[in-house]
Amino acid sequence: MHKIDSTEKLKNPRFIKPIMINYSHFGVEKKWEAVLSHDSVAVLIYHTQRNAFVLVKQLRATVLNKNKDNGMMYELCAGIVDKEASNAQIAKEEILEECGYDVPVENLEKISSFYTSVGISGTHQTLYYAECDDSMKVSEGGGLHDEDIEVIYVPVEESREFMFDESYQKTTGVMMSFYWFFDTKQHLI
Amino acid sequence: MHKIDSTEKLKNPRFIKPIMINYSHFGVEKKWEAVLSHDSVAVLIYHTQRNAFVLVKQLRATVLNKNKDNGMMYELCAGIVDKEASNAQIAKEEILEECGYDVPVENLEKISSFYTSVGISGTHQTLYYAECDDSMKVSEGGGLHDEDIEVIYVPVEESREFMFDESYQKTTGVMMSFYWFFDTKQHLI
Repeated sequence: MHKIDSTEKLKNPRFIKPIMINYSHFGVEKKWEAVLSHDSVAVLIYHTQRNAFVLVKQLRATVLNKNKDNGMMYELCAGIVDKEASNAQIAKEEILEECGYDVPVENLEKISSFYTSVGISGTHQTLYYAECDDSMKVSEGGGLHDEDIEVIYVPVEESREFMFDESYQKTTGVMMSFYWFFDTKQHLI
Repeated sequence: MHKIDSTEKLKNPRFIKPIMINYSHFGVEKKWEAVLSHDSVAVLIYHTQRNAFVLVKQLRATVLNKNKDNGMMYELCAGIVDKEASNAQIAKEEILEECGYDVPVENLEKISSFYTSVGISGTHQTLYYAECDDSMKVSEGGGLHDEDIEVIYVPVEESREFMFDESYQKTTGVMMSFYWFFDTKQHLI
């Protein structure tokens, strides 16, 4: 279904932007090799009628390159901040593109923001929470172009088992936001 | 105290390893630009006598390059898997190097494992939990060489406020593992 054919040293990257950061630390000049990355947004989506979290499942070449037999990832709906729009607006558009739900932007609730890969890129992610239901469903989702994203519903009653089952490869944000939901939205379930 | 002097395009990286991944997806040949990264381990450390989480605070050039006035990060004690040793053993050594506690390797409890930066590197991190107390303190910690790591104690009773205070810049793993502790180790506090 999926396999790595080869990997090669990348001489002229188009998307990856390696940089040298020259900085001063208490007056001492230092250097750090890094990769530029866009800020991003991610959304924990809760489907109220299904009592389920809405995740996206997709093949990630980077993960396939590590685990030759499994590159499928379960992730929060997410996208990069690469245009002039508010983070919440970009999150709203990602929910529509990836999952097919038209959620009003004012319904997005900010959870917090975090950094990942601080050694390589220091990617900054702002995390939101949104509720959806069948009345907001306008398309199948799946992402733009050839993104090949599958929309997955994880019933809340199965979500704790899902969190600790490593055969479902997932991002840290999935587990963190499920816990946030249990902590904050317990009254909904 | 800290400032960015300049950034420049990195022509001959020594540490960053950009690669092209050539892979097949349902028979279609595809390419993905990526950066190789080591797997890593991270540890949520709980100091039983202080009733506090033990975190490391350090300057990250990548974060300073985004937030010109603040590059300080609050992170779990962590390290890369770059030698022939078990993940738990590497985690144990990081606790000693960064935080100064000599915790028996058999005391490390695995929480789970996750991927971060799946678009760029697909970094894989195995997360552990360890308890420490003053009897295990053997050094000041601070990391090897010029790592400049500060050991920080976050009292459990202040940890929820800390989690949502974005002026303390943190990784997703900090928030996730605090929630895991509240969920799993409530009897300790």
